Amino acid sequence: MFNFASDNAAGLSPPILKALIAANEGFAGGYGNDEISNALTQDFNTLFEREVSVYLVSTGTAANSLALAALTPPHGVILTHEHAHIIDDECGAVELQTHGARLAPVCGQGDKMGGKITLNALEKTYQGLVKRVPHSLVPATLSLTQSTETGEVYTAHEMQALCDFAHSKGLKTHLDGARFGQAVAALQQTPAELSWKLGIDVLVFGGTKGGCMGVEAVIFFDKALAHNFELKRKRAGHLTSKHRFLAAQMRAFLASDHWLDNARHANHMAKALSSKFKKLAYPVEVNAVFPILSDEEAAHLRAQGVVFYAWPCETPHTYRFVTSFLTTQEDLTFTF
Amino acid sequence: MFNFASDNAAGLSPPILKALIAANEGFAGGYGNDEISNALTQDFNTLFEREVSVYLVSTGTAANSLALAALTPPHGVILTHEHAHIIDDECGAVELQTHGARLAPVCGQGDKMGGKITLNALEKTYQGLVKRVPHSLVPATLSLTQSTETGEVYTAHEMQALCDFAHSKGLKTHLDGARFGQAVAALQQTPAELSWKLGIDVLVFGGTKGGCMGVEAVIFFDKALAHNFELKRKRAGHLTSKHRFLAAQMRAFLASDHWLDNARHANHMAKALSSKFKKLAYPVEVNAVFPILSDEEAAHLRAQGVVFYAWPCETPHTYRFVTSFLTTQEDLTFTF
Amino acid sequence: MFNFASDNAAGLSPPILKALIAANEGFAGGYGNDEISNALTQDFNTLFEREVSVYLVSTGTAANSLALAALTPPHGVILTHEHAHIIDDECGAVELQTHGARLAPVCGQGDKMGGKITLNALEKTYQGLVKRVPHSLVPATLSLTQSTETGEVYTAHEMQALCDFAHSKGLKTHLDGARFGQAVAALQQTPAELSWKLGIDVLVFGGTKGGCMGVEAVIFFDKALAHNFELKRKRAGHLTSKHRFLAAQMRAFLASDHWLDNARHANHMAKALSSKFKKLAYPVEVNAVFPILSDEEAAHLRAQGVVFYAWPCETPHTYRFVTSFLTTQEDLTFTF
Amino acid sequence: MFNFASDNAAGLSPPILKALIAANEGFAGGYGNDEISNALTQDFNTLFEREVSVYLVSTGTAANSLALAALTPPHGVILTHEHAHIIDDECGAVELQTHGARLAPVCGQGDKMGGKITLNALEKTYQGLVKRVPHSLVPATLSLTQSTETGEVYTAHEMQALCDFAHSKGLKTHLDGARFGQAVAALQQTPAELSWKLGIDVLVFGGTKGGCMGVEAVIFFDKALAHNFELKRKRAGHLTSKHRFLAAQMRAFLASDHWLDNARHANHMAKALSSKFKKLAYPVEVNAVFPILSDEEAAHLRAQGVVFYAWPCETPHTYRFVTSFLTTQEDLTFTF
Repeated sequence: MFNFASDNAAGLSPPILKALIAANEGFAGGYGNDEISNALTQDFNTLFEREVSVYLVSTGTAANSLALAALTPPHGVILTHEHAHIIDDECGAVELQTHGARLAPVCGQGDKMGGKITLNALEKTYQGLVKRVPHSLVPATLSLTQSTETGEVYTAHEMQALCDFAHSKGLKTHLDGARFGQAVAALQQTPAELSWKLGIDVLVFGGTKGGCMGVEAVIFFDKALAHNFELKRKRAGHLTSKHRFLAAQMRAFLASDHWLDNARHANHMAKALSSKFKKLAYPVEVNAVFPILSDEEAAHLRAQGVVFYAWPCETPHTYRFVTSFLTTQEDLTFTF
Repeated sequence: MFNFASDNAAGLSPPILKALIAANEGFAGGYGNDEISNALTQDFNTLFEREVSVYLVSTGTAANSLALAALTPPHGVILTHEHAHIIDDECGAVELQTHGARLAPVCGQGDKMGGKITLNALEKTYQGLVKRVPHSLVPATLSLTQSTETGEVYTAHEMQALCDFAHSKGLKTHLDGARFGQAVAALQQTPAELSWKLGIDVLVFGGTKGGCMGVEAVIFFDKALAHNFELKRKRAGHLTSKHRFLAAQMRAFLASDHWLDNARHANHMAKALSSKFKKLAYPVEVNAVFPILSDEEAAHLRAQGVVFYAWPCETPHTYRFVTSFLTTQEDLTFTF
Repeated sequence: MFNFASDNAAGLSPPILKALIAANEGFAGGYGNDEISNALTQDFNTLFEREVSVYLVSTGTAANSLALAALTPPHGVILTHEHAHIIDDECGAVELQTHGARLAPVCGQGDKMGGKITLNALEKTYQGLVKRVPHSLVPATLSLTQSTETGEVYTAHEMQALCDFAHSKGLKTHLDGARFGQAVAALQQTPAELSWKLGIDVLVFGGTKGGCMGVEAVIFFDKALAHNFELKRKRAGHLTSKHRFLAAQMRAFLASDHWLDNARHANHMAKALSSKFKKLAYPVEVNAVFPILSDEEAAHLRAQGVVFYAWPCETPHTYRFVTSFLTTQEDLTFTF
Repeated sequence: MFNFASDNAAGLSPPILKALIAANEGFAGGYGNDEISNALTQDFNTLFEREVSVYLVSTGTAANSLALAALTPPHGVILTHEHAHIIDDECGAVELQTHGARLAPVCGQGDKMGGKITLNALEKTYQGLVKRVPHSLVPATLSLTQSTETGEVYTAHEMQALCDFAHSKGLKTHLDGARFGQAVAALQQTPAELSWKLGIDVLVFGGTKGGCMGVEAVIFFDKALAHNFELKRKRAGHLTSKHRFLAAQMRAFLASDHWLDNARHANHMAKALSSKFKKLAYPVEVNAVFPILSDEEAAHLRAQGVVFYAWPCETPHTYRFVTSFLTTQEDLTFTF
């Protein structure tokens, strides 16, 4: 109870657990050659209203790094938010899988910039990159995160402008959607409207933070970009032999909009939670709340068993509280 | 029914599924910071009768490639059987994680050599390696597989001789134990007697083929070799956020010798299955049977729904049948 | 004439050419097993007043990237000036040789910062790095450049403060000395006083820009850090078979302080050149001049055949003029 | 005198040294932007009777590894002779530049096979490669050496058969021509007839062993394959700033068939040298002689100052003697 450490502190939501148990019946082909896995692509085609290529892996770090390796040569540059998960939290996974591409941090450049990249900051960072072939690396990819690390959401308009700029410069676009569901729930638009229709080339559709045990889908909207992806996945040790269990989780996650229900619930609980705090560092748009707390306030909460982390950012005394499908009204009964 | 394609065609054995369900209760810390994960090292210390360092990952390819990367520099050579899984079935995962070390295939060199490396063949291959620093790569590691791809088992004596030779040349030793349990069951010696006491430095203790959903333990007997391993694992995308589920599988696998019971059952079913065939390419020592079948015989079996694969080897018309914890007497009722 | 494009626009200075010709007599051992190569280490021991390990390569990019690979693991972070040569001009060579380490750009952080890293900026950048093992990369190395890309020179005091900070955090230190000679000439201190005595662990001692044809020396002051370096060099294709020609260049460069004479001349010509311009973007401390020119002024110079490049920096209309051992008074006779 | 250690024991042949000296006059553009470099491509177009893409580097290891990286993805397999230079003598350079592709050694498979790959051996090795995507690596490239490490020469017919087989399987072809000139001299056919007309896609045209100081040309006959090659070269530290000196060497090497004259001389001296020995391990077709010597004979030669190396091969007591443009009749006056 009172655990707001991360959305990965929750386990499996009940329908997904049920699907796992059901998938365990009898024998099945390995490495994705089974009935559940075979059915999955059609689920995603329907969800995204077009034909897509889908590959499952078990962690977000794997999904992001392999997706970016599909878009970025070793001599490429990936522009991304200075505090993107791929910069701060994946221990160089992108560098490993791309064989040494470079992450160029987009920072505010004087503007106040929260967790979202602004078009102005993107343009300035891009302009500032040295581009003298063959002496310098070649800008190749824009990586965005939706919803962001700070619980903010890009509007469709904002994301389209960033993708348009990227495409105008010949860059491909990647969306880290570990919490894509939460953004869809918040924006009340369709997955298609919030991804490829805005110019996203490859999406990591996150399952783990939404209630799966450990499964993320790498979705290629342009199938040509998926060339050799199955080799990259295998080489990285991310082709699961008992693949039916990944597929079963994801099918249950998609069925009857369970993913969206879980996201809505988490978002709703975050909103409710936020009302308990006086000062927030970022707006509450999805399932994370960033209160600014005095040391006494933080200690008071911890004394009640409330679990949460300090958040490193420009505003001192900021903390992060994350809600999930598992968060209940009871979890909000701590006193403040 | 009648599925002998691989031991990964079976799902979760019941006690492991039960443990997964139990682990799903409530919140837990991420990335291994939970009670189940914390208890796991002691389980392995007990199993191996010494202190070990343990790291869980979800695939055998990840386990092998990361373990070998801990032992082998980019300019190193790994000696291994010419048809080892790391050569034929992992799409260059070792080359990725080691940043380009080389796999030197040990082949029979004129001797008839089955799935096991002979000391003679190892010595000849080692002698044949060019060793003129800095022009040539540096022999660094011996990688063995127990039980082997061909369902054979190294005796303790055989393995010790190979490890002794390796250590005498300054090489480290890795054991691919995706089916280590089956070998322990066959040899009726302890895990310690069949690993570090013979000179194995790092063991991949396989769970997936034994009845887990997807979990392998990388066991370092010499803890100094585990230096930076947690960074390698994270960077490769193999640190699972909801780690409790990997740990719960493995704990249930180890509890009450469940791993050994499953292995014994699989071995027993293979023996029973083998009695149906007249000619075998390899002796039946664990849970795989390699019959030599005429085209008519193979077709006759397939017509009954029996699932199995052709096996590429020197003896033509060889096929592989694999049994598992899930194989029953009923699965042996096909006619031949 | 009038060529100020770069110091690499000059060829071989006469004593070095003479040494090349002399070295061509008769047969010699390959790969450094020759008399000239054997004598070189002692030359450097004398120059640096201690025992060092020396490795020659033919380009600065090779020297920097291999030296940094000796100091930095794949999961390491290298802190360096945001416009260091290794960031802007080497096409990811560091990422290749380190197998994906990350370059963290040190920028002014609000301070006006020229081509030199300030201690304040280094501290802020270091503090800003996320350091949560195993999620984030591990700060490993500080890379400085002396003299800098902007023709500025760190004082001994400044460099020592930076190295002290680095060592206090467990970082190793690398000095890109493509123009180390020019700095030594400017500061009038000994090579030892300007390198290891300040805390530099590995120095790239540049020959090419000083009058060699193509040779750089990687100097390890701590020989333990050179472990396996000869393997890295060979693997990268940078062990030259006819090594005597690299060694002959470097020996002639060192003999009778020829390297220092060439540097003094180049510095002197830059000072003389600078007096022709009214406005400069950076102080003239070594052999580069950065005038701020109107479009008309630049065109007027180019019409006379003066060769120089625009310099990308915050101050608009900045250009770079580089002098070398080959620059003469005649080269300064263009009108302004 | 009496130095037969390697053809790299000789320095610069006189016309090449002369060209180097001439190239030293005045200023020149860097990184290949100079008149000498600009003229080089046309020289090669003429030599090969078609348009080619040419890139110079300073070592054979660089040339081979970068050329192979242009043809081979990280998940690719390169088939080559079990004792090819890229296997035995380049310390994993191919693995570094390809980011972990695998070298598959073609060995005799029971046939007596010298230094040349036979079609039969190539076919058997290819057939023996496991090819189950995505579990196994993908055969990508055939790498041949002409003339071979054992001083043998592929006939045009033999090489064409190997290239045809490679292309029929979708492989690209690379020719390590460190001693291509010696083969052209021996076979008395044109460079075109011995390269692209036989199906070679990329040729390393060696200068160093022929009398240059250190320069090799990577020649792409299919220009599309050179895509991004200049980035790979720069990233590897193999773009030389004072590039005019590489180009000057190569231009002088090509001028008036100097390369061919040097090769003919070296071949001729090898023939003359071979007549002094009774037993040879390989036929003398170019500039290397592989006598079989008793310990007493070897000692007798060494006592006279004759320099040569033992050669590791199946035939015991084999030694290698290499001649070059610098070898004279006097060098043959040792007694035997």
